[in-house]
Amino acid sequence: MNILVTNDDGVNAPGITALATALRSLGRVAVVAPDREQSAIGHAITLHHPLRADQIADDVYAVSGTPTDCVNIAIHNLLDFKPDLVVSGINRGANMGDDVTYSGTVSAAMEATLMGIPAIAVSLATAGEGSNYDAAALFIRQLAQQVIKQGLPPDTFLNINVPDLPRGCLKQPIITRQGKKQYQGAIVDKIDPRGRQYYWIGSIDPTFEEIEGSDYVAVSRGHISITPLHLDLTNYASMDILRSWELSTQS
Amino acid sequence: MNILVTNDDGVNAPGITALATALRSLGRVAVVAPDREQSAIGHAITLHHPLRADQIADDVYAVSGTPTDCVNIAIHNLLDFKPDLVVSGINRGANMGDDVTYSGTVSAAMEATLMGIPAIAVSLATAGEGSNYDAAALFIRQLAQQVIKQGLPPDTFLNINVPDLPRGCLKQPIITRQGKKQYQGAIVDKIDPRGRQYYWIGSIDPTFEEIEGSDYVAVSRGHISITPLHLDLTNYASMDILRSWELSTQS
Repeated sequence: MNILVTNDDGVNAPGITALATALRSLGRVAVVAPDREQSAIGHAITLHHPLRADQIADDVYAVSGTPTDCVNIAIHNLLDFKPDLVVSGINRGANMGDDVTYSGTVSAAMEATLMGIPAIAVSLATAGEGSNYDAAALFIRQLAQQVIKQGLPPDTFLNINVPDLPRGCLKQPIITRQGKKQYQGAIVDKIDPRGRQYYWIGSIDPTFEEIEGSDYVAVSRGHISITPLHLDLTNYASMDILRSWELSTQS
Repeated sequence: MNILVTNDDGVNAPGITALATALRSLGRVAVVAPDREQSAIGHAITLHHPLRADQIADDVYAVSGTPTDCVNIAIHNLLDFKPDLVVSGINRGANMGDDVTYSGTVSAAMEATLMGIPAIAVSLATAGEGSNYDAAALFIRQLAQQVIKQGLPPDTFLNINVPDLPRGCLKQPIITRQGKKQYQGAIVDKIDPRGRQYYWIGSIDPTFEEIEGSDYVAVSRGHISITPLHLDLTNYASMDILRSWELSTQS
């Protein structure tokens, strides 16, 4: 099995090291990841300037771009194999509910899915630096084998959130739906050393609605959360309502 | 009616000027947009450095960040009103199919939706600079009135793609589903003036699958496309399949 590993915390983050180490027992693992932290970068792709890729060890590359850039450059330029699986993570901090759309970790898995490659995004639900990356990585090793064996539904990848608990304390994995964040804005508005005003967007710990069956509820109870996400954002249920609106190109 | 207008092509792009001009007949319009082009930035939010907002005219601000940053700073810091509606665009180039996840234009509407504000993203389906922003803007003025009157389904916003045609040539609006892009990678791999290798991700015109009822098919036939998008990426249909997998925290 050939596996591409990436992340958004950067190539030297503890999560990606634990993940790559665990997956190496399954086959060849290449790590192609940003050279610095790229969290909250979403599905950004770098079109307006060139990118660098430095090989820093055997099958390990640091790229001067986003996680989405990494997946593209890895597959088109750096690797001498096409991966059977792309695994993105292990992110420091959960990616649940509406936060998945901001997440570089999740977007890398989305990009692989667009390319037709099975993909998993994995995050450690921790408010701090995280202690139990190894436990999460061992679960992902098992999940990766299942993904290769069973395949994934079309245009669908798996978004995994693992509680930051020792292996013996993790409760069984649950298939979940994407939860719902309670929006909280927090922007600092200050004056810089030269007297000019600036704004700094805060990252406060999100709070979530208590939706039964959601990623958030599963993780908050100690379970590993597995959410199948797909690329189609269409709200089909609303289409008939919209068709009743009176709209014209000429009025 | 109070309206916030933003985009990802930058505050001086022709699309945002046409849009703001058309919407001013409906009420007060504030423009808060990136100070430079931020296309393909996705739902990126700037957390790691401060942001500036320069007022360049009455109710017009240029922000040194992403479209998502603009929506946040506008609502939390810059505006003395809460918008009844956020309109993002008019983007130079279509945002259809899987491209919606890369789009700063679409992500700004997504961010407003997360805040509970009705939102519309609008793009001009043009391969060049675009000629018919005014025609698209007039349609959005009409649509904005409908959105305010009827409301939108929960957690849902509208993604509009308008063919680059004169007003009299536009065909009636159609409610569509998100289409499917055919993935095409194109990365330049060259040597810089100092002899170092670099990569540059190309942006080729995407091709789409001919899915009946999709955004792409509507626009390619001259219709305005209205796609309701929502924040929930869960693939509900796949959950039962995944529940049949044998997974354990301890194996």
